[in-house]
Amino acid sequence: MSRTEVLSRTEVLSRTEVLSRRRLLGTAGATGLVLGAAGAAVGYAARPAEATPLTSLGADQVMFHGKHQPGILQGLQARGHVVAFDLAAGAGRKEAAALLRRWSETARRLMAGEAAQQDDTDVARDSGPSALTITFGFGHSFFARTGLEKQRPVALDPLPDFSSDQLDKARSNGDLWVQIGANDALVAFHALRAIQKDAGNAARVRWQMNGFNRSPGATSHPMTARNLMGQMDGTRNPKPTESDFDARIFVPESGSKDPAWMAGGSYAVVRRIRMLLDDWEQLSVKEQEDVIGRRKSDGAPLSGGTETTEMDLEKTDKAGNLVVPINAHARITRPDQNGGAAMLRRPFSYHDGIDTDGVPDAGLLFICWQADPLRGFVTVQRKLDRGDALSKYIRHEASGLFAVPGGAAEGGYVGQGLLEG
Amino acid sequence: MSRTEVLSRTEVLSRTEVLSRRRLLGTAGATGLVLGAAGAAVGYAARPAEATPLTSLGADQVMFHGKHQPGILQGLQARGHVVAFDLAAGAGRKEAAALLRRWSETARRLMAGEAAQQDDTDVARDSGPSALTITFGFGHSFFARTGLEKQRPVALDPLPDFSSDQLDKARSNGDLWVQIGANDALVAFHALRAIQKDAGNAARVRWQMNGFNRSPGATSHPMTARNLMGQMDGTRNPKPTESDFDARIFVPESGSKDPAWMAGGSYAVVRRIRMLLDDWEQLSVKEQEDVIGRRKSDGAPLSGGTETTEMDLEKTDKAGNLVVPINAHARITRPDQNGGAAMLRRPFSYHDGIDTDGVPDAGLLFICWQADPLRGFVTVQRKLDRGDALSKYIRHEASGLFAVPGGAAEGGYVGQGLLEG
Repeated sequence: MSRTEVLSRTEVLSRTEVLSRRRLLGTAGATGLVLGAAGAAVGYAARPAEATPLTSLGADQVMFHGKHQPGILQGLQARGHVVAFDLAAGAGRKEAAALLRRWSETARRLMAGEAAQQDDTDVARDSGPSALTITFGFGHSFFARTGLEKQRPVALDPLPDFSSDQLDKARSNGDLWVQIGANDALVAFHALRAIQKDAGNAARVRWQMNGFNRSPGATSHPMTARNLMGQMDGTRNPKPTESDFDARIFVPESGSKDPAWMAGGSYAVVRRIRMLLDDWEQLSVKEQEDVIGRRKSDGAPLSGGTETTEMDLEKTDKAGNLVVPINAHARITRPDQNGGAAMLRRPFSYHDGIDTDGVPDAGLLFICWQADPLRGFVTVQRKLDRGDALSKYIRHEASGLFAVPGGAAEGGYVGQGLLEG
Repeated sequence: MSRTEVLSRTEVLSRTEVLSRRRLLGTAGATGLVLGAAGAAVGYAARPAEATPLTSLGADQVMFHGKHQPGILQGLQARGHVVAFDLAAGAGRKEAAALLRRWSETARRLMAGEAAQQDDTDVARDSGPSALTITFGFGHSFFARTGLEKQRPVALDPLPDFSSDQLDKARSNGDLWVQIGANDALVAFHALRAIQKDAGNAARVRWQMNGFNRSPGATSHPMTARNLMGQMDGTRNPKPTESDFDARIFVPESGSKDPAWMAGGSYAVVRRIRMLLDDWEQLSVKEQEDVIGRRKSDGAPLSGGTETTEMDLEKTDKAGNLVVPINAHARITRPDQNGGAAMLRRPFSYHDGIDTDGVPDAGLLFICWQADPLRGFVTVQRKLDRGDALSKYIRHEASGLFAVPGGAAEGGYVGQGLLEG
């Protein structure tokens, strides 16, 4: 496989809309970069006078303000938290607006490596922002609770039931949703606590989950990420360089059925997908490859080539059998087999220890982004539901659907167009 | 504070006994290093022919063989798992010996960046070993189950009860204990699954916990690690450069009351210490500093100086009050206040999501190493139990004590001296 043929999702995404502080300061960004007043030291009044030298991982900074919120196009981060809140009894539109304003200011500060507005816990002290992103969304139930039903997007209508669902409602949906990602676990935890503290009396945590991806630098092999089944995951993700990328992932400025406040936004489908690893790992590599339709070693289609080679859906072996089985996961999920349905998958793996009998509570915090969940996630999931070979080895345990507005303008906050519209 | 005065624990430890593959190959270790047959590609037969270029984080390799096991002196890793096993009914000394042989071979292979012996899950494929360490220990109950009571160290006698304990027995102790650490979460998970698979019918998981530390490169500030209270943690850790370090941490070759098979070994005390963060974060920084006895910003004693300045225990303010309060945590835990008791703390933070009412299930997977738990952990914990200001803000929820033998010789396995002695 030629390395130039392969562009990992992380690489592609990290080239877009990401402002690295290293790049800002015009250095190639190895080690020893000393930051001045604009650096990570801002806000920590008691920090020693010397500036903190940040190495490349810590120095990576993603901009909070922009057309889109930051946790969609940013490359996969090593650590993630997702958390849903419900508004407290008595809290309405006014309290929600104040909360989103607080949250946005916290996100802006922490993503710049600054301390929180008040009572910073110091957990991220000494660290750079480490590519921290904080991203906010609204669930279906938010709109009735705030008297904003008329602003509720049709796209937030509840997802259909799928036969393979075993959903825990207590860990599904919610009024508000926050996605946090960073390449350092303490930076991510620090942000989670700050977001929770900001909620104050306005909202309380409904559910919260943790996830992870590979650490930057663990490999420089130009391959797509692997999941806890050992499979490469994300090969067919749409790429920002593709001409229809924006139309598939983001709500346009006009001409869609979405409310105006969703311009530049996207819809996130969040699924906690348990992997039944004990069953999966009993399969041979050949059997696993037939389930997926791709080679495990390098992600190439079973019909041949490299990871990025088009899958030959009609290719047969000498016995006349399809080389890529009819129920292979990668066959069923191909956009050209689903009316062009596409979503940007940007997951975290999760592992919450071990259940009874030594079974790992582990799998994928599947998060996908699309302009229209009915044309993205629902279309593909309906088809998977009817005959995906992978379905025997996974279980959807929780589900959320959230409207994630466009990014905040300078001085503004996320959701302002909704809450002050 | 002058940077030259401060040596972080991680820095100190990573200079000892750690063989970085980058160093082996004589490069400064940025990116683009291409490994040959001795590199991480060994064992993955189906891996593409091109060698995998590893960046610095992935390329770090710790040696499995040596005088001590690898997870004691190695610097803090970004991700960790601890897991305890109980021998299965009917399994005895013979099965335990075979298991330790399998485990040692798996540890040797994975720490070298190779695939597992059989049925590798491919989860760590494409990654370097990322400073992976796998370390094995024996609990008190192991010895009766294997007919080896006469070989059981006195040091494994159960820890005394402490008044602040609220221990969950199901998550405490166990016949066998494995500590896994790596700077990449998928590499660590991969190792955990391989270790669990190796257990086969010989042992089953009793409990398992996950933890984390800061990612390499998130900061290059030469400070000690912080914990989830935002405190620097580990300032007074003994350092391998100190003349009595080995005597405090490791069982000597001879002259101790320990059995011969523990030569070069150490005793690990493992405590799951929940942090009551909601209470802690309601304190002002001044109140937190009085609880700890050190400045939160830089870890300096409240009596003045820098992180490494000796604490002045007698210093008083104008009103005649002790500057370092009498019940301050850092005062009570000072070795010179505890008959020289010293242990090497090498913890992970943990965060397992959120309990009811939004309370985080988070704190410290406290792991400390010492030649004698009675002179190390027990001495200090007894004193803390009588009047540590920090005790209001933490809760010990699980506890383990394990005998961790010395490292395996080439061709040997961990615990061979016990199991074939």
